[in-house]
Amino acid sequence: MTIRFESFFSAQTRLMRASEIRDLLKLTEGRDVISLAGGLPDPETFPREEIKKILEDIMSNNWREALQYSATAGVASFRKELASFSETRGIKGQGVSNVFVSTGSQEALFMIAQLLIDPGDYVIVESPTYLAALNAFRTRSPRFEGVPIEEDGMDIEVLESKLKRIKAEGSKVKMIYTIPTAQNPGGVTMTYQKRKALIEMASRYDTLIVEDDAYGHLVFEGESPPAIKALDKEERVIYTSTFSKILSPGFRLGWVLAEEEFIRELELMKQNVDLHTSTFTQYIAAEALRRNVVQNNLPRIRQIYREKRDVMIEALQDNFPGDTKWSRPVGGMFVFAWVSQKLDTAKLLPTALERGVAYVPGSSFFHDFSGKNTMRLNFSFPTKEQLKKGIQLLGSLLKEFS
Amino acid sequence: MTIRFESFFSAQTRLMRASEIRDLLKLTEGRDVISLAGGLPDPETFPREEIKKILEDIMSNNWREALQYSATAGVASFRKELASFSETRGIKGQGVSNVFVSTGSQEALFMIAQLLIDPGDYVIVESPTYLAALNAFRTRSPRFEGVPIEEDGMDIEVLESKLKRIKAEGSKVKMIYTIPTAQNPGGVTMTYQKRKALIEMASRYDTLIVEDDAYGHLVFEGESPPAIKALDKEERVIYTSTFSKILSPGFRLGWVLAEEEFIRELELMKQNVDLHTSTFTQYIAAEALRRNVVQNNLPRIRQIYREKRDVMIEALQDNFPGDTKWSRPVGGMFVFAWVSQKLDTAKLLPTALERGVAYVPGSSFFHDFSGKNTMRLNFSFPTKEQLKKGIQLLGSLLKEFS
Repeated sequence: MTIRFESFFSAQTRLMRASEIRDLLKLTEGRDVISLAGGLPDPETFPREEIKKILEDIMSNNWREALQYSATAGVASFRKELASFSETRGIKGQGVSNVFVSTGSQEALFMIAQLLIDPGDYVIVESPTYLAALNAFRTRSPRFEGVPIEEDGMDIEVLESKLKRIKAEGSKVKMIYTIPTAQNPGGVTMTYQKRKALIEMASRYDTLIVEDDAYGHLVFEGESPPAIKALDKEERVIYTSTFSKILSPGFRLGWVLAEEEFIRELELMKQNVDLHTSTFTQYIAAEALRRNVVQNNLPRIRQIYREKRDVMIEALQDNFPGDTKWSRPVGGMFVFAWVSQKLDTAKLLPTALERGVAYVPGSSFFHDFSGKNTMRLNFSFPTKEQLKKGIQLLGSLLKEFS
Repeated sequence: MTIRFESFFSAQTRLMRASEIRDLLKLTEGRDVISLAGGLPDPETFPREEIKKILEDIMSNNWREALQYSATAGVASFRKELASFSETRGIKGQGVSNVFVSTGSQEALFMIAQLLIDPGDYVIVESPTYLAALNAFRTRSPRFEGVPIEEDGMDIEVLESKLKRIKAEGSKVKMIYTIPTAQNPGGVTMTYQKRKALIEMASRYDTLIVEDDAYGHLVFEGESPPAIKALDKEERVIYTSTFSKILSPGFRLGWVLAEEEFIRELELMKQNVDLHTSTFTQYIAAEALRRNVVQNNLPRIRQIYREKRDVMIEALQDNFPGDTKWSRPVGGMFVFAWVSQKLDTAKLLPTALERGVAYVPGSSFFHDFSGKNTMRLNFSFPTKEQLKKGIQLLGSLLKEFS
């Protein structure tokens, strides 16, 4: 006889629910399904030879330190490299004490949520936005307000009207979460003018900006404006980024740039969560920055993804029904599509999987689970052949059900 | 002008306080102080040559997978190796779905606390116990009850009287947290008889056992009884252990063995916390298990630590005042000492640091911050010379202040 765990779980645990969609997508693992659902980088972008050399050198010279425990906020030499690397996004004047290393940027988002959000606090997000950020924030039960994104980023007028309304209520917005560059899933980049307007608004309404710059180095068309953090004179911006798209997701390395007091609080929390991030992978990434391996590899990654985006966009034009719209991303890894209003992409998913293609129903990317007729399509991981075939399969399905 | 963060922090954050002791000990970094305060393994125990070979092979054969995202519960081949490795602790019949990989065992403890504890819930801990576990649990504001440890482990009679009292109150104990083997900081191992009594008691009073087996493979004197999990017929035991002491802490790898339903909840939570643990270090450890690198290295680690323990014990006998008592650990990395009742080891620490030696004041290891006259002394990391010198310095200081 084994016990039932139900009675032992905390109230918070009992509120968490397994996502049916995740369960569905898990079923496709190992099956002959073309997955446009993931968010995996193309393994061809991994600088294998350079990493191999770095590993040899670490195991010859720094193995004692690289295999040992290390400081909670991150390995000092890595933090120093990260402070310099930030300059490639226009962010100057960051010292080691402004840098914090996290176990992927997911951990940074989780800890920022724990540090800032009390249940019922207002949190403003883009609509749509990164699904795993929404879930990290949900662990603190905030009140979400969504701001639509336009071709040139967040709709600043809607944002201001929300800030005004919440202020009039006598409440305050704890933070505005934005992915200003090559937005996930929208694929758009916020203009320099809007960035300036956003930071001025944050100051006027006394709120914080959490800037997720995961794709800041992956803009393959047009300009990549400086990070919002580069315009930050009042330390209102908590900046986070990741090595998952520019080196290797298997290293689980993300980082935060913020004011020192905030970094110290992150450090206190991380002591409880996981003590510190892998010393070994931090040593690898520090060397990859110091030797310019990351920097020199970026043009190649951008080219690979631009080509794959073009293949997907062409396939969409050739195969999707006339009433479908889709983003033409200037960077990143995803196309976002709006299909016929009559369709619910979550309900369509099981049939798509049967036909051999997977995608993420778009409603997961909306804080209020709207956007039932949307879907996110990944172009970074599948081969070009798979992209064509996957979009063909999906196109026929949409035509059939429209 | 920069903003003040104070007004943005969540209520929970404002409750967290920096530990003065941690701040003090941080000041010693890079200074000429012999640290008996840490918990670092001896780098000589790292199987450097074998890891080097494994890295070469991964970068030749599995680099595409090892550098990529991986499943939240852990890399399947690693989970399989862990299920087998559990048999070395007497734990049989564990399948892949009973195994969960965490970012060090710290993350396992943190997530177990989030999943199980509601504020005010009873949690029973050993007194003294592992300080970072106490802190992880404190994030959920439990009511702690402490049970003293004896030469042969937890005082089972005190435990039962507490369970009885709490039951009579109409309450329930959510979990009993125990480090039954080479206890940290106590250094004692619970007998087989007491393990059986403990699990029967957990069944009788319907509670869970969280078994921290961090030192299960590091018993260098006498028997290492099977894990409590090995005696578990009702899936009441949530078992956790770590690679930090048997391979490398820099990899940040821990694991949990538990009933499938519980593993699924951990997985849901980990999606929010950090998506998954480093794929790359999981591949290394999986190979280190498959090639018996970990298993074959254990006798060497035990011998190194037994020798160092002997050096510390001898130095204690030669240098500490007559009214001091200390544990004679049968495994692990620490000696725990009780000095004169008149002394407060936390207040003594700044003077000790000035004299060139650091330790952890013992009160941090007590849920109620009692044990003011105790200290934890690490023998795994310092050299034998440092151990002698450090204990000498501390001995003179104690004699002076007693």
